[in-house]
Amino acid sequence: MRSIGVVVPQSMHFSQPLPLQSGALLANYTLVYETYGELNADKTNAVLVCHALNASHHVAGSYEGQPKSTGWWDNMVGPGKPLDTDRFFVIGVNNLGSCFGSTGPMHTNPATGKPYGASFPVVTVEDWVHAQARLADQLGIHQFAAVMGGSLGGMQALSWSMLYPDRIANCLVVASTPKLSAQNIAFNDVARQAILTDPDFHDGDYYAHGVVPRNGLRVARMIGHITYLSDDDMAEKFGRDLRGTDYQFNYGVDFEIESYLRYQGDKFSEYFDANTYLLITKALDYFDPARAFNGDLAAALANTQAEFLLVSFTTDWRFAPERSREIVQALVRNDRRLTYAEIDAPHGHDAFLLDDHRYMNVVRTYYEKIWGRITVRQGDLHRKAA
Amino acid sequence: MRSIGVVVPQSMHFSQPLPLQSGALLANYTLVYETYGELNADKTNAVLVCHALNASHHVAGSYEGQPKSTGWWDNMVGPGKPLDTDRFFVIGVNNLGSCFGSTGPMHTNPATGKPYGASFPVVTVEDWVHAQARLADQLGIHQFAAVMGGSLGGMQALSWSMLYPDRIANCLVVASTPKLSAQNIAFNDVARQAILTDPDFHDGDYYAHGVVPRNGLRVARMIGHITYLSDDDMAEKFGRDLRGTDYQFNYGVDFEIESYLRYQGDKFSEYFDANTYLLITKALDYFDPARAFNGDLAAALANTQAEFLLVSFTTDWRFAPERSREIVQALVRNDRRLTYAEIDAPHGHDAFLLDDHRYMNVVRTYYEKIWGRITVRQGDLHRKAA
Repeated sequence: MRSIGVVVPQSMHFSQPLPLQSGALLANYTLVYETYGELNADKTNAVLVCHALNASHHVAGSYEGQPKSTGWWDNMVGPGKPLDTDRFFVIGVNNLGSCFGSTGPMHTNPATGKPYGASFPVVTVEDWVHAQARLADQLGIHQFAAVMGGSLGGMQALSWSMLYPDRIANCLVVASTPKLSAQNIAFNDVARQAILTDPDFHDGDYYAHGVVPRNGLRVARMIGHITYLSDDDMAEKFGRDLRGTDYQFNYGVDFEIESYLRYQGDKFSEYFDANTYLLITKALDYFDPARAFNGDLAAALANTQAEFLLVSFTTDWRFAPERSREIVQALVRNDRRLTYAEIDAPHGHDAFLLDDHRYMNVVRTYYEKIWGRITVRQGDLHRKAA
Repeated sequence: MRSIGVVVPQSMHFSQPLPLQSGALLANYTLVYETYGELNADKTNAVLVCHALNASHHVAGSYEGQPKSTGWWDNMVGPGKPLDTDRFFVIGVNNLGSCFGSTGPMHTNPATGKPYGASFPVVTVEDWVHAQARLADQLGIHQFAAVMGGSLGGMQALSWSMLYPDRIANCLVVASTPKLSAQNIAFNDVARQAILTDPDFHDGDYYAHGVVPRNGLRVARMIGHITYLSDDDMAEKFGRDLRGTDYQFNYGVDFEIESYLRYQGDKFSEYFDANTYLLITKALDYFDPARAFNGDLAAALANTQAEFLLVSFTTDWRFAPERSREIVQALVRNDRRLTYAEIDAPHGHDAFLLDDHRYMNVVRTYYEKIWGRITVRQGDLHRKAA
């Protein structure tokens, strides 16, 4: 299947202040986004794709002259792909606090003239959704045909269904959870502690010191990466394979898994911003829509109007199928229309980014249903107009 | 049940060099150990208890004037306890490379006159067992009634059954594994990386700089601690409970689990030595007795003569029951006598240190069987002598 090809990011500035869940106010901000496909005349074919921890607005396609700059969900989004850009107008938007273009800790705080650093306000999934809604306003999209995301992106999709029930026709939540467990929070906090206690962190103002807390960020990423893979998958891919022929009896690389993880950590620490890492893990920890309803997720979802697709993966131990089933059960209690697919895949949490024909077919079929409704409605409109 | 009471550590110096698995030679060394109970006349009632990552020779009882200095397995070892010191002569020995008394990185390298630091040779489970065997020689114990340990301690017990088959009558392996998985190694390596990249590590020579790599050690311990607890147990104990009444929207403590983990990390980083942490995690990673037999664990265990008790815990995801079953299957293929108990306990890997009446009863019953044989044999000897 072909990719969408060369894409160009756009940006939109918002000068109306954004009130945040924390009580802080973001005076003004810029959102960077990409779009693929064409918005139809009645603006009913728009799909918003929300990104997870280390991704961005760059969902599909690649940048001019950079053939390796493929978007993070290029296997899912493109011409003829499960989310078919020949049919749908797809928007990828970079979230506030990110290090990939939208206003974040690396940008200048207009109040001080210096980078925000760690003083960038802690943002939540709900804050992101409100900012995304403003972008939709500017693009003239009243209702999305679908909002879709995996992991933290799935939380945003779920949040859309609650915060803007009439603006989302379908909600696709993949490998996600209605809230983090104590163990999830624990892993996030260790990662944060690695960053916060790195002497190069300088209370988040490392930009001014010409350094980055690379060691902390590297360890944070290594911890995260372990939780993205399944035990089985790691055993299959690496097992106890040695890099050399025998044990080295030192603290260099003995096992292939060490080499792989250190490489992942090194790579990540070279392109990702530590303050962004802190912010995004906090957004993960804080997400808990049932909290305002005494822990009753069904009550939190009572005002939703969307139809839902939920997908989980059997070997995902970060956000296990059980967590998706909690959402399913809460939706069933509300008599919502939903499809739930539990995919028997070996790749752990990462499975949501990978090709699996059953997974891809489930999403494809779901979008075909959405497309069918859009075309039927268009047919009705045409008949009325005739 | 009463504790063994006040105990006193002893030490024994060995001037005969110890050849290590790495090829290095430890010129001379000291082992610190404790004993509880009385060695019988024919020296058939000795039990060796092997310690895991962060423990020591101080298995039971407490030190004079320090009522809180209770040994790490005081619930298991003592008068009337499952390993009954009214019957057995129990030895706890601190392993080489430790920071609790036996020769380790903090001690002076006789070749340089400076602390070993990171130059202390990487030691293996097998090296520890050989050192323990020399201690047994000095104590005049030819055969242990049992060698017992949990986790890394269980690896030592298993290793005894292979390295000294005629010197161990019973082998008790609790919450252990025949080898670490890729995921186990990954967690160990991230912990090591946190220490190795701490600027206060100074290539392991931090003693000379008057600092310790506290931040790295703290993160290492936090990572480890997450793997010791079960997801369920963490959910039960902490869930998403907040420290205060609402989210703080900063990087301080929001959740109780954060507070708990940071406290564990802080405490550990104040008493544990970073070089020892590195050494012991390497010993864990390297343990793989089947490796010399093309991965055939049954072949590795073919020359064992002991009887075995294996215990695992259902919610232990560090060394899951499946890992104990691998040992069981390999022993069954060798027609060895064994008992295997899979305890349905909620406490994850830590369960091996905690009271659970089914677990304690299994161990107690097993030691009663051992004791029965010892007394029958003693009766036989007495009759012969009469």
